[in-house]
Amino acid sequence: RFGQAEMDDQVGVVTGLAWTEVGGELLTVEAVMMPGKGKMTVTGNLKDVMKESISAAASYVRSRAIDFGIEPPIFDKRDIHVHVPEGATPKDGPSAGVGMTTAIVSVMTGIPIRADVAMTGEITLRGRVLPIGGLKEKLLAALRGGIKKVIIPEENAKDLADIPDNVKSGMEIVPVSRIGEVLQHALVRMPTPIEWVEPVETPKPISEEAGKSLAH
Amino acid sequence: RFGQAEMDDQVGVVTGLAWTEVGGELLTVEAVMMPGKGKMTVTGNLKDVMKESISAAASYVRSRAIDFGIEPPIFDKRDIHVHVPEGATPKDGPSAGVGMTTAIVSVMTGIPIRADVAMTGEITLRGRVLPIGGLKEKLLAALRGGIKKVIIPEENAKDLADIPDNVKSGMEIVPVSRIGEVLQHALVRMPTPIEWVEPVETPKPISEEAGKSLAH
Amino acid sequence: RFGQAEMDDQVGVVTGLAWTEVGGELLTVEAVMMPGKGKMTVTGNLKDVMKESISAAASYVRSRAIDFGIEPPIFDKRDIHVHVPEGATPKDGPSAGVGMTTAIVSVMTGIPIRADVAMTGEITLRGRVLPIGGLKEKLLAALRGGIKKVIIPEENAKDLADIPDNVKSGMEIVPVSRIGEVLQHALVRMPTPIEWVEPVETPKPISEEAGKSLAH
Amino acid sequence: RFGQAEMDDQVGVVTGLAWTEVGGELLTVEAVMMPGKGKMTVTGNLKDVMKESISAAASYVRSRAIDFGIEPPIFDKRDIHVHVPEGATPKDGPSAGVGMTTAIVSVMTGIPIRADVAMTGEITLRGRVLPIGGLKEKLLAALRGGIKKVIIPEENAKDLADIPDNVKSGMEIVPVSRIGEVLQHALVRMPTPIEWVEPVETPKPISEEAGKSLAH
Amino acid sequence: RFGQAEMDDQVGVVTGLAWTEVGGELLTVEAVMMPGKGKMTVTGNLKDVMKESISAAASYVRSRAIDFGIEPPIFDKRDIHVHVPEGATPKDGPSAGVGMTTAIVSVMTGIPIRADVAMTGEITLRGRVLPIGGLKEKLLAALRGGIKKVIIPEENAKDLADIPDNVKSGMEIVPVSRIGEVLQHALVRMPTPIEWVEPVETPKPISEEAGKSLAH
Amino acid sequence: RFGQAEMDDQVGVVTGLAWTEVGGELLTVEAVMMPGKGKMTVTGNLKDVMKESISAAASYVRSRAIDFGIEPPIFDKRDIHVHVPEGATPKDGPSAGVGMTTAIVSVMTGIPIRADVAMTGEITLRGRVLPIGGLKEKLLAALRGGIKKVIIPEENAKDLADIPDNVKSGMEIVPVSRIGEVLQHALVRMPTPIEWVEPVETPKPISEEAGKSLAH
Ligand SMILES: [Ca+2]
Ligand SMILES: [Ca+2]
Ligand SMILES: [Ca+2]
Ligand SMILES: [Ca+2]
Ligand SMILES: [Ca+2]
Ligand SMILES: [Ca+2]
Ligand SMILES: [Ca+2]
Ligand SMILES: [Ca+2]
Ligand SMILES: [Ca+2]
Ligand SMILES: [Ca+2]
Ligand SMILES: [Ca+2]
Ligand SMILES: [Ca+2]
Repeated sequence: RFGQAEMDDQVGVVTGLAWTEVGGELLTVEAVMMPGKGKMTVTGNLKDVMKESISAAASYVRSRAIDFGIEPPIFDKRDIHVHVPEGATPKDGPSAGVGMTTAIVSVMTGIPIRADVAMTGEITLRGRVLPIGGLKEKLLAALRGGIKKVIIPEENAKDLADIPDNVKSGMEIVPVSRIGEVLQHALVRMPTPIEWVEPVETPKPISEEAGKSLAH
Repeated sequence: RFGQAEMDDQVGVVTGLAWTEVGGELLTVEAVMMPGKGKMTVTGNLKDVMKESISAAASYVRSRAIDFGIEPPIFDKRDIHVHVPEGATPKDGPSAGVGMTTAIVSVMTGIPIRADVAMTGEITLRGRVLPIGGLKEKLLAALRGGIKKVIIPEENAKDLADIPDNVKSGMEIVPVSRIGEVLQHALVRMPTPIEWVEPVETPKPISEEAGKSLAH
Repeated sequence: RFGQAEMDDQVGVVTGLAWTEVGGELLTVEAVMMPGKGKMTVTGNLKDVMKESISAAASYVRSRAIDFGIEPPIFDKRDIHVHVPEGATPKDGPSAGVGMTTAIVSVMTGIPIRADVAMTGEITLRGRVLPIGGLKEKLLAALRGGIKKVIIPEENAKDLADIPDNVKSGMEIVPVSRIGEVLQHALVRMPTPIEWVEPVETPKPISEEAGKSLAH
Repeated sequence: RFGQAEMDDQVGVVTGLAWTEVGGELLTVEAVMMPGKGKMTVTGNLKDVMKESISAAASYVRSRAIDFGIEPPIFDKRDIHVHVPEGATPKDGPSAGVGMTTAIVSVMTGIPIRADVAMTGEITLRGRVLPIGGLKEKLLAALRGGIKKVIIPEENAKDLADIPDNVKSGMEIVPVSRIGEVLQHALVRMPTPIEWVEPVETPKPISEEAGKSLAH
Repeated sequence: RFGQAEMDDQVGVVTGLAWTEVGGELLTVEAVMMPGKGKMTVTGNLKDVMKESISAAASYVRSRAIDFGIEPPIFDKRDIHVHVPEGATPKDGPSAGVGMTTAIVSVMTGIPIRADVAMTGEITLRGRVLPIGGLKEKLLAALRGGIKKVIIPEENAKDLADIPDNVKSGMEIVPVSRIGEVLQHALVRMPTPIEWVEPVETPKPISEEAGKSLAH
Repeated sequence: RFGQAEMDDQVGVVTGLAWTEVGGELLTVEAVMMPGKGKMTVTGNLKDVMKESISAAASYVRSRAIDFGIEPPIFDKRDIHVHVPEGATPKDGPSAGVGMTTAIVSVMTGIPIRADVAMTGEITLRGRVLPIGGLKEKLLAALRGGIKKVIIPEENAKDLADIPDNVKSGMEIVPVSRIGEVLQHALVRMPTPIEWVEPVETPKPISEEAGKSLAH
């Protein structure tokens, strides 16, 4: 059922945590990859801040591609679509950033995401995880939804003092400060880094080689 | 007549169910495919959430193309136009998603859609069918319109308890949770999956092969 | 004079019927075709619903090109401009759809449109003609403007009972349900369908032929 | 001085007539042509209806290019910029259409426009001249500005009865119904029509010639 | 210091004169040219009328390129960025037009602009200089800022009668009617016109030469 | 912790100083460079003036590329993304200009930025540093955040008289007037200028060489 943890580990599907007027809620993020030309589509009634968090997530992954075992040219040959059901509900805020990053890494590497993990946290371009609001409501929603492990920002760890004991004992709560830690908990296995040497271009006729750089 | 079930099984024409202030209504969705460059046009006074549901439907079909027997390069060589008459009436919401998906699969495979089937349900990028509102009004409209079979989301099955018996006995009502089930009921035959090996590119001159990836 | 039927059968010029606060009015629709790259321009202070009806008309013609004797590649080599004078008057609604379709078919086939015919009706992507509002006012305007034959949607035929006899006897009124009927009445001759075999592409080097589809 | 007739016959410079709250005014329209790729730029604080009248003017000229002695490929190799000083004053309405058309024909043919002619009239895509408002105020402005000949729409000829005699005797007033008449009065000489045979494309390899059309 | 005349003659830097609620002010306009593809960027919190005046300035320079010694193909190989500090202050109006034109000519020819000259005036597409408002406040600002020579529109010369004598004696005030005069006062030297013969294209295969124009 | 000086010297990460209703604040600016086509992406809930300051910074760097040791063609082969966490907070104003410039130079040269330096100042297209507001609040935020050196605009030096002594003695405060000074204080080493000769194009067939420029 929707609003419950996913049943199976899937590629490109991650469980985020939203904070609304009426409490916390599980938020499924879906990413698919298609043959294409490098276009990114985002849907699901997303407002500007959430759209920007997907953009930041995508640039983070692209700028670190080889660390995730992704050959850079693939970015020009695939389109990615990130969708957040349910389409009738407006969604905003930066706290789905770690989820967006995880979904993009998963879909580009083909590595499934653990179905019983949920996560919340703003992402920066360098992969830092920044604090979020509504921790208590989000953890309650995770517990209700059958989540086993929740990843939260390190800077929110101090807020755990206010969380009821039954919530903290009902799930493993993991504070993290870098996206690398998120991936280690969320992916069923870590991607293998590659080395990549940018292709040199075909030699041009002499007359085009006048462009030289000389340190002086 | 408009507002009645279609007479013939047609390619690209599906009957959705809308829920308005004045009750439920049949909603025809039309899709045509043309020689082109991969452009998607959507018309019919559609608001953002309905437009996004077409985008999600299109990406779902594109990401699963070979399961539907569609060779991926075709997406770059055809334009698709999805139109929802009547143009003067604004239309919104995600519940036409399963209809949009069915219309796109039909038009890309050439397989007609059964004229006596109507459907309602939000679609996700992975092909899940999510619940909708206004079930009662939609079923009444379907009955009035001469529909024989209505496809609804599995998660709305619990709402059938509130539906008058004459409605439930007048039509076959089919709860589904995946788009695959929708297609099995709506298409006159299922598409045949294909295998597809992405073309490798023409070998480039040596000097361009410096780009290598080495796992380490 | 403007507001009167055209004098000569012309290519790309059709007489529509508008319904405004102050009654019905003749509405000239002009289309021209130019060497180009497939761009469609629409002007004349048109609001969104009327713009969309031109888009639907264009896709209908494009998806049925060979039935109209139009070789599909022509769509990439011509620009079309549809204009609705008078520029100072905002215009909206879907009821000019059959006129837009007729103008586009005329301009692409070079077949003139009869100057003494006027028409009203929403068009769908499959060429169905849907009902419109303001039938009485539109017919009065046609009569005043010297029109000899008015094409109306079949589903509006029932409204003819309310039309004064002098209007009905002063002009031929033709209810239609498909665009094909519209063209038979409006064009000075019907286009001749052609057969078209999509060009196959130049064979590529072996190494690019790995993309194969195998039914299984 | 600005607000006065131009001194010299110039290429691309035409005098229009505007109608504002404070009376009529001369309106200079400037067009320049530059090496480019077919882009049209419009500036001068122009609102939508005036922008659309430039678009209609440009398509009229493009669709009739050979009648004006313009080789069609030139449209892809030149950019045109139409500007209406003074930049601080918002301008709207379709009545500068004949002026826009004249300026574009002039700049594309290199034929100067007579400095002592002013003009007003909406243009249609087929080159018809439609009536305008504010005739009296516009004629007074023309007289004040030293204009010798004013071109007005034929359908406004009936309004001349209300114009003071000194205005009518002070200038030649020419009612016209087609843009061709406008050009005959405004250009220092008429362009010479050319014949044009669209280039056929380089023969393609056999395998690409499958695209054939067969009447049947 | 900002708000003072520049110290050195620089390429692409010109001093304009703005008129605000609190009086006149010096307005620096900066232009830089970069390797590129013909893109124009404008920044500095500029509103539409000022943006359009940059567009008109650029088209004027482009349409007169050879008079300024600029080879036309350079326009496709360079990007230009025009910026007006200070970014927090909104700026509007057409009166920076002559400054924009001067900055663009300077940056494309490499000829520096005299640091002790300021200027104000609307520019037209043909290089005419149109009158501006706020002359008195602008001249006072120029005086305070250490400007030695101020270029103003010829049509504002009549307003000099209202300017205090100490202002008129403290600076040279030069009324001009054409941009050529502006450049003569502002640039450290005038550009040398060139002749330019548009390259003819490589001969195409016979079959593509069908496009001919024949006067008749 | 966020709101504290960075721990390590990093490439593309700079500490700016923001001024909000509730006082000063450290503002991290992140830039990453990726294989691409010259696209610039900016995120972080940035309003127009701050977006324009990134555009000006980028053009400054591009127009001075060889002074920073950057080969000009690299601008067409890389995408840059500038992000300012925290995504939920709107940010505006030109005072992050020097930080944006420093981040872009760092990411394009690969030279790290000193972690204990903060900076504020508007940038112009020529690299001038213009004054900012809120100096006192910004310096207090820098002190609280553990910053050792703060770069401020020269024209703000006069405002230091109002700053408490403990703030001025707790950090080195460096007034600057040019971006070059900023880089000397902020980068761990200065970039080495290069010489660059623009590649000449491959000779074209004779018939294309008609384009010549002749001084006359
Ligand atoms: Ca929900
Ligand atoms: Ca931790
Ligand atoms: Ca209806
Ligand atoms: Ca079921
Ligand atoms: Ca009218
Ligand atoms: Ca009939
Ligand atoms: Ca005026
Ligand atoms: Ca006449
Ligand atoms: Ca200032
Ligand atoms: Ca003078
Ligand atoms: Ca903060
Ligand atoms: Ca200093």
